[in-house]
Amino acid sequence: MADREIIDFLIVGAGCAGASGAMYATRLNLKAVMVAELPGGLITTTHLVENWPGIKSISGPDLASTLLDHATSFGATLKNERVLEMAMANANPPEGSRSGFVVKSASNEYFAKTVLIATGTKHRKLGAPGEKEFENKGVSYCALCDSSFFKEKIVCVVGGGDSAAKEALLLSEHAAKVYIVVRRDVLRAEPVNADRVKANLKIEVLYNTEIEEILGGSKVEKIRFKGGKEMAMDGVFMAIGHDALSSIAVPLGVELNDKKEIKINRHTETNVPGVFAAGDVTDTEFKQAITGSAEAVTSAFFAFDYIGKNKVVF
Amino acid sequence: MADREIIDFLIVGAGCAGASGAMYATRLNLKAVMVAELPGGLITTTHLVENWPGIKSISGPDLASTLLDHATSFGATLKNERVLEMAMANANPPEGSRSGFVVKSASNEYFAKTVLIATGTKHRKLGAPGEKEFENKGVSYCALCDSSFFKEKIVCVVGGGDSAAKEALLLSEHAAKVYIVVRRDVLRAEPVNADRVKANLKIEVLYNTEIEEILGGSKVEKIRFKGGKEMAMDGVFMAIGHDALSSIAVPLGVELNDKKEIKINRHTETNVPGVFAAGDVTDTEFKQAITGSAEAVTSAFFAFDYIGKNKVVF
Repeated sequence: MADREIIDFLIVGAGCAGASGAMYATRLNLKAVMVAELPGGLITTTHLVENWPGIKSISGPDLASTLLDHATSFGATLKNERVLEMAMANANPPEGSRSGFVVKSASNEYFAKTVLIATGTKHRKLGAPGEKEFENKGVSYCALCDSSFFKEKIVCVVGGGDSAAKEALLLSEHAAKVYIVVRRDVLRAEPVNADRVKANLKIEVLYNTEIEEILGGSKVEKIRFKGGKEMAMDGVFMAIGHDALSSIAVPLGVELNDKKEIKINRHTETNVPGVFAAGDVTDTEFKQAITGSAEAVTSAFFAFDYIGKNKVVF
Repeated sequence: MADREIIDFLIVGAGCAGASGAMYATRLNLKAVMVAELPGGLITTTHLVENWPGIKSISGPDLASTLLDHATSFGATLKNERVLEMAMANANPPEGSRSGFVVKSASNEYFAKTVLIATGTKHRKLGAPGEKEFENKGVSYCALCDSSFFKEKIVCVVGGGDSAAKEALLLSEHAAKVYIVVRRDVLRAEPVNADRVKANLKIEVLYNTEIEEILGGSKVEKIRFKGGKEMAMDGVFMAIGHDALSSIAVPLGVELNDKKEIKINRHTETNVPGVFAAGDVTDTEFKQAITGSAEAVTSAFFAFDYIGKNKVVF
């Protein structure tokens, strides 16, 4: 077999977690490569980040690029490719050794001693009729990306959490009126943001309300609520949560919880030796950019420890 | 009883962990107060921090003040006082309620619904004859603080870990010669720093070597190794580890491990409801500024959650 380059620490994903893990790996002299479909990760769709300790205010895209620059300028490599498949490189490692991993994208095949899964999450869909039909025609999953298209328009945000509050606040900078459509009777936003919503004259919260259908012609024109009431609407922004992008880990035998999040311990180890996970894809309950970052830093250290203690074969 | 101000989240300590937890608490609209003997914490004795994700290079004191400023400018309060005692405020809380905490310094008494212990660690002593006698007369625990006093002098660093390597590198900027005195046969430094030590012509590592006594007149003049060999020496820098500052938590019934570190779970909860711990004082195995910071952020969230779920009495 031809010589091939062996990566010490291959990171699937390059968001806040992935980039921080890659940076730390370079401090440990590990050869670290991030393979990511969306460099920067989901925080690139966030308008304003005020809670990264040490940085009072920064845009999501700027935080992402700052973290990526920290990693790459210290020697980590970023490949902008989607990982299609991960597998054990050696089905029968000799007694006393461990198999490395083979990670495939459409254009490349990588061999790695350890793997960090930091794939994050994707936006959840509402599943209402019209949602798919009007995607990018009034239905959006990213207020930051699309709010400027709705100047002086009437829009709504669907969701009852902090993301819904933040999206509404952002939209109120452009739109004439912003409704927050909350299924339950409470908006569970960060109190700072809940207060801002209350004080904002453009925003109105509709509690105990669910969308039944999104209607229109060439673009969204109105929504119909459960119960039959209709309301004119130019834009519908979904902020109803995220699903963990964990399916890539399943063929390796990595255990998930009932939310399909990857189960990790305090070392960020999964149940599969040599496979680590960090950030939004894990079963950590309170997920923040900074907690995902710290998890990936921990992953880098225990990957370094694993490589020192195990003979890894391919 | 006169009305007294109730703090939601009292943080003992104001290092990287404490400051980050205080900042996050303000985002949750919690009244947060840090009570700390050494604002900034032990990182203020570090020359250069290159591994805080998002900040490529910053001095320890600057990182500390950046984090403290982030917390205080968002509304957290810093009290520069040493906590002397912590206790339950109410020995017999009514059924279905929880006791708050009373935290005393020499000049103040604080009442808090929840407490975060982020006291960190203190430098360990070698225990060799002469160590105490020559403290600040050639014996130091902080190269950053004292290295400039040793221009063109001969110094040694005692210790076999990453701190020892970093202290030696820093001292080599000033001293004529720097020995690293390592008890075992290996220097367990971050590989980046181990490489720097190897490449540095002023630094020499003495393996399998232990100091028996530190000798001198009005200041350090020489050291005697076990086995009897003596060496002329102007300065002796200790980098032999840290002890967790956990004793303040013991009267509350907080459980420690055998290293006297506070045991926490993934929510950073201790065994005592309402008492959280984060950072270097905990039983987390890989302790970094960023991991302590993320722990304290997690503490703030679960303290917020605890306050929402429990009636706290005083």
